[in-house]
Amino acid sequence: MAELRKEPITRMWVVVTNDHPKGPSDYLPFKPPYQPQETKGTCPFCPGNEGTTPKETFSLKREGGGWAVRVIPNKFPFFHIEGEFDRRPEGMYDVMEAVGAHEIVVEAPEHKQSLALMEPPQIQKILLAYRDRLLDLEKDRRFQQFLILKNYPGVFNRHPHSHIIAMPVIPRRIDEEIWGTLDYYQRKERCIFCDIIKEEILMKKRVILETVHFLVFSPFASRYPFETWIIPKKHSPDFHHIQEEEMEDLSVAIQSLFIRFRQLLSDPPYSFTFHTSPVQTRFHRSEYHWHIETRLRIGLREGFEWGAGFFVNPTPPEDAAAYLRRVE
Amino acid sequence: MAELRKEPITRMWVVVTNDHPKGPSDYLPFKPPYQPQETKGTCPFCPGNEGTTPKETFSLKREGGGWAVRVIPNKFPFFHIEGEFDRRPEGMYDVMEAVGAHEIVVEAPEHKQSLALMEPPQIQKILLAYRDRLLDLEKDRRFQQFLILKNYPGVFNRHPHSHIIAMPVIPRRIDEEIWGTLDYYQRKERCIFCDIIKEEILMKKRVILETVHFLVFSPFASRYPFETWIIPKKHSPDFHHIQEEEMEDLSVAIQSLFIRFRQLLSDPPYSFTFHTSPVQTRFHRSEYHWHIETRLRIGLREGFEWGAGFFVNPTPPEDAAAYLRRVE
Repeated sequence: MAELRKEPITRMWVVVTNDHPKGPSDYLPFKPPYQPQETKGTCPFCPGNEGTTPKETFSLKREGGGWAVRVIPNKFPFFHIEGEFDRRPEGMYDVMEAVGAHEIVVEAPEHKQSLALMEPPQIQKILLAYRDRLLDLEKDRRFQQFLILKNYPGVFNRHPHSHIIAMPVIPRRIDEEIWGTLDYYQRKERCIFCDIIKEEILMKKRVILETVHFLVFSPFASRYPFETWIIPKKHSPDFHHIQEEEMEDLSVAIQSLFIRFRQLLSDPPYSFTFHTSPVQTRFHRSEYHWHIETRLRIGLREGFEWGAGFFVNPTPPEDAAAYLRRVE
Repeated sequence: MAELRKEPITRMWVVVTNDHPKGPSDYLPFKPPYQPQETKGTCPFCPGNEGTTPKETFSLKREGGGWAVRVIPNKFPFFHIEGEFDRRPEGMYDVMEAVGAHEIVVEAPEHKQSLALMEPPQIQKILLAYRDRLLDLEKDRRFQQFLILKNYPGVFNRHPHSHIIAMPVIPRRIDEEIWGTLDYYQRKERCIFCDIIKEEILMKKRVILETVHFLVFSPFASRYPFETWIIPKKHSPDFHHIQEEEMEDLSVAIQSLFIRFRQLLSDPPYSFTFHTSPVQTRFHRSEYHWHIETRLRIGLREGFEWGAGFFVNPTPPEDAAAYLRRVE
């Protein structure tokens, strides 16, 4: 039988099929769309081509010369940094200019590189870049929400990079989480994420690994096969107030998770997003709890997710966690 | 500049980029995942193989012998028809058995066939099958929501078919629409869909075609390039109370839309879903308004939609409607 599991934060039902659960081998080999694509022409992210990109907003030097991590404005942004919102009606509808920031974090000088192959100090430099840019962007009072996200391999360029986006509105998925956490807090006077962390550590079966500061686990109502969350064990609403020591610990957790994905599923394509509290908000700081959500881009199930906002996951999270724990 | 447009029903912001809008040729040729796949082995949906499928729940005869449309239970259902819900806690979480119905509508005897190539009387037979099955499934008081959906080409079999699903819970996307329509009704005492229809007919620029009973248009905050809605102009909460004459008219509108897609975008892959009012509900019948949402599966934008529930559409709906109107 299949089960309907309720995602505790957004209260969305997810179908988890457990009669014929799918393991890693059921997803291999990957279908063609997810084969890494080669960059066409000269890669603007490679050392030596810095002149072809917009002026960098942040960079860290590498010992021995050159840069280790570099942040640049996106040449093709979804949100433009200049201009006014110009909120206005259009007939019965509402519209505003897409004012915001969209920057690219070039994660390493090497064109072929991945989080699974990097050492923790390099991953930590990427986290430093994220933090530094968010602390800077926070000064701009026009922005309500930061998004950090990565597609691996990149859609247009396989040089390892991620996106930082500052938006003037709160996107749907974050908004749903916030309403869910507020509602839970009203009933319990506790953060729902903190409760989930305690529950998962107690039940063990969905835990992949635990470090001093972070828990890595498969969520109870995983929408996707091998969906994995990385969450700070201590209550903390936003990523960009993370401490040096926590970043060091997080870089070890990230490396370990992506090595596991790579070994278990033959270097799978994935996406991750940092979910962090909105800025400039009336919203209390006791409810929200930042975390990273990762999804492997395998086992496409277009119609249902799209048409109904309704997910079917053929790999129960308890199985996924067991597979990922077992990787040496 | 790009615009942020607010989807008026669910109140989600969508980025519509209009500085370099993409037209049909920007999406061609399609990437490999969306090439139709051939059915492996014998097709269970072809005439002569009826014995290999579960017993049919509905069928219509074709003049001259054989069947025109056939409905069968899905051999690999997400929801199982037998059993109890068994709603229960699991630690801090909530779970229930996935009890429901999942049937397949085989839309024609011909293995290679599509809505764009069918005559309206055949499309009307498919609509009759949908209506008849929903009227039957409505008697089962366990179900809260019906979904009708189709992927073209089919993921596992390209014989033209669609899915009918009866669920014990209301999926997220429908739930969001319902809350949006209720809220609008409270303020205005009018159905928001009826207002949208009036607005679109008045403004003309997003209308693709209009029949006696239906409006076919590109919604103001289209999440996907060439997203198209088909909606009855008369207020009507659920599809399965559609009249014979309206079905005849709808089959003409469907044929015309899918011919336009086919000609404009070289037989593109698409999905559609019928959004219809929940059954067995306290919900008033004045607010919800059934409709069909169609999406072309072109121009994949994985990371953003998934990570943040946040859509970027590079083809403004006014452009999409103009392209689709122009097709002869």
